[in-house]
Amino acid sequence: MKRTPVRLADGRELIYFDERDDADRTAPDERELPPPPPASQLRYDPLLDEWIAVATHRQNRTFLPPSDQCPLCPSRPGRPSEIPAQDYDVVVFENRFPSFSHRFEASQGWLDDGLVSLRPGGGRCEVVCFTSDHNASFVNLSPERVRTVVEVWADRTVALSEIEGVEQVFCFENRGPEIGVTLHHPHGQIYAYPFITPRTRQMLRSARRHAERTGRNLFADLLAAERRGERVIAYNEYWTAFVPAAARWPYEVHIYPHRQVPDIPALSDAERDAFGPLYLEILRRFDALFGVPMPYVAAWHQAPVHTDRDLAYLHLELFSNRRAPDRLKYLAGSESAMGVFINDVRPELAARQLREAL
Amino acid sequence: MKRTPVRLADGRELIYFDERDDADRTAPDERELPPPPPASQLRYDPLLDEWIAVATHRQNRTFLPPSDQCPLCPSRPGRPSEIPAQDYDVVVFENRFPSFSHRFEASQGWLDDGLVSLRPGGGRCEVVCFTSDHNASFVNLSPERVRTVVEVWADRTVALSEIEGVEQVFCFENRGPEIGVTLHHPHGQIYAYPFITPRTRQMLRSARRHAERTGRNLFADLLAAERRGERVIAYNEYWTAFVPAAARWPYEVHIYPHRQVPDIPALSDAERDAFGPLYLEILRRFDALFGVPMPYVAAWHQAPVHTDRDLAYLHLELFSNRRAPDRLKYLAGSESAMGVFINDVRPELAARQLREAL
Repeated sequence: MKRTPVRLADGRELIYFDERDDADRTAPDERELPPPPPASQLRYDPLLDEWIAVATHRQNRTFLPPSDQCPLCPSRPGRPSEIPAQDYDVVVFENRFPSFSHRFEASQGWLDDGLVSLRPGGGRCEVVCFTSDHNASFVNLSPERVRTVVEVWADRTVALSEIEGVEQVFCFENRGPEIGVTLHHPHGQIYAYPFITPRTRQMLRSARRHAERTGRNLFADLLAAERRGERVIAYNEYWTAFVPAAARWPYEVHIYPHRQVPDIPALSDAERDAFGPLYLEILRRFDALFGVPMPYVAAWHQAPVHTDRDLAYLHLELFSNRRAPDRLKYLAGSESAMGVFINDVRPELAARQLREAL
Repeated sequence: MKRTPVRLADGRELIYFDERDDADRTAPDERELPPPPPASQLRYDPLLDEWIAVATHRQNRTFLPPSDQCPLCPSRPGRPSEIPAQDYDVVVFENRFPSFSHRFEASQGWLDDGLVSLRPGGGRCEVVCFTSDHNASFVNLSPERVRTVVEVWADRTVALSEIEGVEQVFCFENRGPEIGVTLHHPHGQIYAYPFITPRTRQMLRSARRHAERTGRNLFADLLAAERRGERVIAYNEYWTAFVPAAARWPYEVHIYPHRQVPDIPALSDAERDAFGPLYLEILRRFDALFGVPMPYVAAWHQAPVHTDRDLAYLHLELFSNRRAPDRLKYLAGSESAMGVFINDVRPELAARQLREAL
């Protein structure tokens, strides 16, 4: 894989990841762009003990543009996009409308008589274009391309972990307008957070308690139990995909490597090779379920950068908000206000439907 | 207010709350109905330390029926609905598709080698019809009707708190198909949970820490600070409505009584009288913001039934997922997978827009 970093017109970094060594990456970004917006402001919620990012510049971000104005397609003569080259394999660049960024003036403060702490949303947000084909989707990628994407995720996890203040690197894909995607071109995102996220913090708290009580790893124990159970969808020598016993979403699949590793960079070559075929099969099953493309979030859970790396266990959580061919699951009162999920589909049934979908 | 409990054809309870004393509530439910479905199954997620409700019968619940088949309208000759009478003021009945119910066979169990605990979803789910007018909305209710609804919430909170195993009573309204509402007729819901919900648990944990450190109540301190700040939308002698400093949603308003009370039944008559006019003003401001009805969740945060009633502080949290006239806020990767909210609208701007909306 050939790795070529360049700079866009406004100073943002873009990196070409090429599967061949002969790609020419000298095309300049010929646009005139305003300077990138500053980082968001983080505000601490003292009731829920969480940080909220206030990113007002994102309100004007590009929203479902016509396909001939797609900013993630390669540039064409007279039609420059975010990617200066006229073709690419996989490309990563700093998000033009980032929630977290290193571009901030150091500023701390307080609101509400010192109850609400403020600080800059340091970190970084990147966009990952999986293919130059506007009309493709992750599920259409070749296993070789997925292998390249795994390599890119590993590269970016290492690089973003080295940024001062970054505590967690989150690689994910939102797919489908039903889940809020604002650009159709197949792409994922990477958030480098300046704190450990609430859900990761809670998972690690549970894992720590389990380790103290049993001496074992909670994630590993759950995986072992699931592998013996009735909710496995597919597996190979290195990975297992299953619907978890306490799934929150109507269709939710977790994919674990059999070996406990903290993050994507820690995966062996054999594990990296084996991921794509299994994941592509799961995505095909998702789309086959109702015969329409499933909206989904695919979320890599990686260890924090500096703490609890021995407790964490890399895994991918994939879930859809579609509960029937013509119906979506909404996070309304119980979920959004109280944090209590009501799942309309029995996880054992969801697993059987996904097994039988192909 | 006259209170008349009756039974529906399948044994579920329905209660008429009438503003006059002469209403005739003898009309029988003439439908033939199957027995109500059993309660959901609760599954414990050992990673996130939360209970999930698996309620498979809800998959077939009534979904946006045509208005002449609305189950929440009064019955008409030849067209029986959930409400046997031909008119009503406010009516409450057991949800036909409940997430929590007393109808369960006692059963406990385990999945995943004892890591995932199972138990029946005991409790109760009720529907509250605010008016017999199908085309109205909460914002159209008279202050007198809102006063009746407050009385009904108080009545139901007392009654549901007495059910064995119920730990928290949650009165809420989801409004608008954009947030997942499946029936247009103006109505709210009440969930009586058999556990303390994750968000309430976290708020009380924060309040306990604050009390130990300062001897004061965290909610009261936040309210006092907000009342001196720039995010107040409206207030009267007994209540203040403000956008919180660390708002998660583009448009989010919290309404607190000035006196710390654990729940709606603890409100004085004067506090109950003063709520409606203020809340209706906030809802009018919501709808005026973009000139279209705002989808919203309105969630009453009440104290748990048995614990921490001295720490809790009754308040209403109102939020919308609309961020612009033609755009919704989605809970995608960062929010759904990691629990990190990105808010595109600065809370001070949201407060100003809401103040200027009328």
